Amino acid sequence: MDGLTAAGERKIAWAATWMPVLSMVRDRLREENSVAGRRIAVILPVDLAEAGAEVAVAFQGAMVHDDVAAGLAARGVSVFARRGSSPEEELGFFEQVLARRPEVVIDDRADVIRLAHTTHPEVLETLVGASEETTSGVVALRAMEADGTLNVPCIAANDARCKFLFDNRYGSGQSTISAVMDSTNLLVAGKRFVVVGYGWVGKGIARRARGLNARVVVCEVDPFAALEAFHDGFEVLPVAEAC
Amino acid sequence: MDGLTAAGERKIAWAATWMPVLSMVRDRLREENSVAGRRIAVILPVDLAEAGAEVAVAFQGAMVHDDVAAGLAARGVSVFARRGSSPEEELGFFEQVLARRPEVVIDDRADVIRLAHTTHPEVLETLVGASEETTSGVVALRAMEADGTLNVPCIAANDARCKFLFDNRYGSGQSTISAVMDSTNLLVAGKRFVVVGYGWVGKGIARRARGLNARVVVCEVDPFAALEAFHDGFEVLPVAEAC
Amino acid sequence: MDGLTAAGERKIAWAATWMPVLSMVRDRLREENSVAGRRIAVILPVDLAEAGAEVAVAFQGAMVHDDVAAGLAARGVSVFARRGSSPEEELGFFEQVLARRPEVVIDDRADVIRLAHTTHPEVLETLVGASEETTSGVVALRAMEADGTLNVPCIAANDARCKFLFDNRYGSGQSTISAVMDSTNLLVAGKRFVVVGYGWVGKGIARRARGLNARVVVCEVDPFAALEAFHDGFEVLPVAEAC
Amino acid sequence: MDGLTAAGERKIAWAATWMPVLSMVRDRLREENSVAGRRIAVILPVDLAEAGAEVAVAFQGAMVHDDVAAGLAARGVSVFARRGSSPEEELGFFEQVLARRPEVVIDDRADVIRLAHTTHPEVLETLVGASEETTSGVVALRAMEADGTLNVPCIAANDARCKFLFDNRYGSGQSTISAVMDSTNLLVAGKRFVVVGYGWVGKGIARRARGLNARVVVCEVDPFAALEAFHDGFEVLPVAEAC
Repeated sequence: MDGLTAAGERKIAWAATWMPVLSMVRDRLREENSVAGRRIAVILPVDLAEAGAEVAVAFQGAMVHDDVAAGLAARGVSVFARRGSSPEEELGFFEQVLARRPEVVIDDRADVIRLAHTTHPEVLETLVGASEETTSGVVALRAMEADGTLNVPCIAANDARCKFLFDNRYGSGQSTISAVMDSTNLLVAGKRFVVVGYGWVGKGIARRARGLNARVVVCEVDPFAALEAFHDGFEVLPVAEAC
Repeated sequence: MDGLTAAGERKIAWAATWMPVLSMVRDRLREENSVAGRRIAVILPVDLAEAGAEVAVAFQGAMVHDDVAAGLAARGVSVFARRGSSPEEELGFFEQVLARRPEVVIDDRADVIRLAHTTHPEVLETLVGASEETTSGVVALRAMEADGTLNVPCIAANDARCKFLFDNRYGSGQSTISAVMDSTNLLVAGKRFVVVGYGWVGKGIARRARGLNARVVVCEVDPFAALEAFHDGFEVLPVAEAC
Repeated sequence: MDGLTAAGERKIAWAATWMPVLSMVRDRLREENSVAGRRIAVILPVDLAEAGAEVAVAFQGAMVHDDVAAGLAARGVSVFARRGSSPEEELGFFEQVLARRPEVVIDDRADVIRLAHTTHPEVLETLVGASEETTSGVVALRAMEADGTLNVPCIAANDARCKFLFDNRYGSGQSTISAVMDSTNLLVAGKRFVVVGYGWVGKGIARRARGLNARVVVCEVDPFAALEAFHDGFEVLPVAEAC
Repeated sequence: MDGLTAAGERKIAWAATWMPVLSMVRDRLREENSVAGRRIAVILPVDLAEAGAEVAVAFQGAMVHDDVAAGLAARGVSVFARRGSSPEEELGFFEQVLARRPEVVIDDRADVIRLAHTTHPEVLETLVGASEETTSGVVALRAMEADGTLNVPCIAANDARCKFLFDNRYGSGQSTISAVMDSTNLLVAGKRFVVVGYGWVGKGIARRARGLNARVVVCEVDPFAALEAFHDGFEVLPVAEAC
């Protein structure tokens, strides 16, 4: 095992120790033999390969860590991804995933599901179903459904309470703050921090920014959410006055 | 035991269950027999009577609960206090305490110590020492010391870390917020809350107000304390702009 | 105007200065002449009398301030309430309200609506509609609706976002903490504070208790809410282990 | 200007926009001509070169960003540092700095001041004074002073209120949390976070961890600081029970 793969393997193993529920799901799938031999396309990496599925993964260059990609490949996943890949390359990656005629697509931003409906309709013949992770992806798929152009059953993973109550608020809340700290290298304490939108993600960001002693201003057009922000102790202003 | 006394006794017993350190001190004093028979004047109620001292208590009308006063009397303390007493009555109470020629004065605001130095100098003949609880009282006594007019050794109880780190910040912090809530009957969440001064008391008030979701502004003339308030995430403004 | 009434009038006027939306509603009702002369029964005091309605108010003895009751009476409201009234007296108060044959009932805990359906069915002949404020009251009315025994249209005021997002979380959150402080006279900081249930009210209490530096434990049987409490940084335990 | 230097220059310029006080100091030094031509050794990078001094910088490999080092060199600073340098190399860097016979040493951890007192005593002949940044460095220098072995006047920069009230609490508080997030890639919310020591740094870490919804336990042997942690709402435990 080369150094890159070993580094990725360590990261994957580390993450797994903090994901007991995912491990339980994997063990159950393996025991029930329910995904063995199925062809699955994944846009976010998961444990399906270990449960016996033929898994192909593609993802956006900005989100790829090459060592993790190598580690996934070493676990038997077909990986189509490279750090810093261009949009053209990404399109190529998605097409390679579709060329494997997946029976299930686990999508993130609905890019692959939409490709299957536009330039690669032959994929729909064998596609049993799909799952979509993001708010924006679900919005797009709902629009297709309303137009009568959605031809495969989809699970709106985004709408699960375990998704939006947690991933959006705590996950995106922390990763946004962390990204701001890493990219600015500034002290958050005492800084004026403007959060535009007080949905689940905005709530998560605003509370964490305050938890690091920023002075937080919330901008929000929905009157109920704006009132919530106000009663949560934030200053509430129109964007034009806040920035 | 009449109803008032019984109510006071219940309150005193309730408070005692939350004061294990004070109980330990009382037990040690009793065991060592160190205050038995001493004449002590107290401006805040304590457990000395139970340790065998002859205790006389006086306090300001605004701080008196008549049932607690009755309860103290039932425990053998000489109590000179009445809810809603006038300043003239309070002066009379203090003088009655001094008439007992206390050997020790445990003061709160230095009123009694100062009386002993001005209109009742005969008390100083038998006064062994005094303790003062408040910041303002200690300031007054230090000024007397500098003038050479302080004629009794005093303990600046206020300067103990166990006093200013805790009583000022947590105690006054909470009781101020509680008083604002009780007297205004308003929701704190979303209110603009101006805290003038960011010393121990101000820090305690500001954090609690924020903990109840107020939007807190701090006014502070000391530049270090103002910078602290700023980095603690508060808006910092001159009083004229904050109010 | 006697002293009690004057004190109540001052409190009512004070509260009104903090209720701009209610004042706007009152002014619109008055302008549109939409409640003039209507007979309305109210279990929580509001501004309808000033908009021209014939308002009768009753409420539970524990929630009555006699001065406010006197102040309402001075404003032309028929008040049936007395501080410390017994349950029997309260029943009598409710019946006096119903005897006025209200066209509209604005209820709090659904006591009056239920009385109208059980022992005073004649009231239903002229009752146009009702509104219910509390979660528990709405649950009771929904059960009656399911049984086919609810004979008057009801507005579930409790289910308005402006109610449960704000009144429950911020209002009950603060008043619970305030009641604990007033009745125990203890420092909240450092105390172990157990909150049973992490709905809107529980969330409001837990955050405020933490905002006053308590160590908060949340008990919750719903797994999503328990996970929320956990990710909000609270210790989560079964009641049996928490207490 | 090569790419590395340009990247470093951008970072230095970015940091400067957030350091108005440092810019004011630099401008005053330049105006007063007070450091022009002086030989200064610096272990943390500052703006002295632009004020006309001959500045030599060395620092530990773990703290070096090669682009910033290149940017400093481009501004005329003599830089002795390389990302990932070994302790032996660092010793060499410090010696090169000392070989320039600095008149002033601005130290961080007192490494260079101690070297000048041990293996390079000739430097002391021309060394006018030194400044030390860290708590641990100041402790070491105080010990030397007590032993009579400190032969140069030192400023304990660490003891300035602007240092320990801010750098320790807010700066180290944030950078520690940020480092934990970056190195573990885990959600902080809901994690049990043990902070050993409740001094300025520990206070800063504990509050930020709680601000990100961790469940924080504080370990502290000083009883006053432990009581503070307790009243700040943290669980307080011996290390053996906390971990």
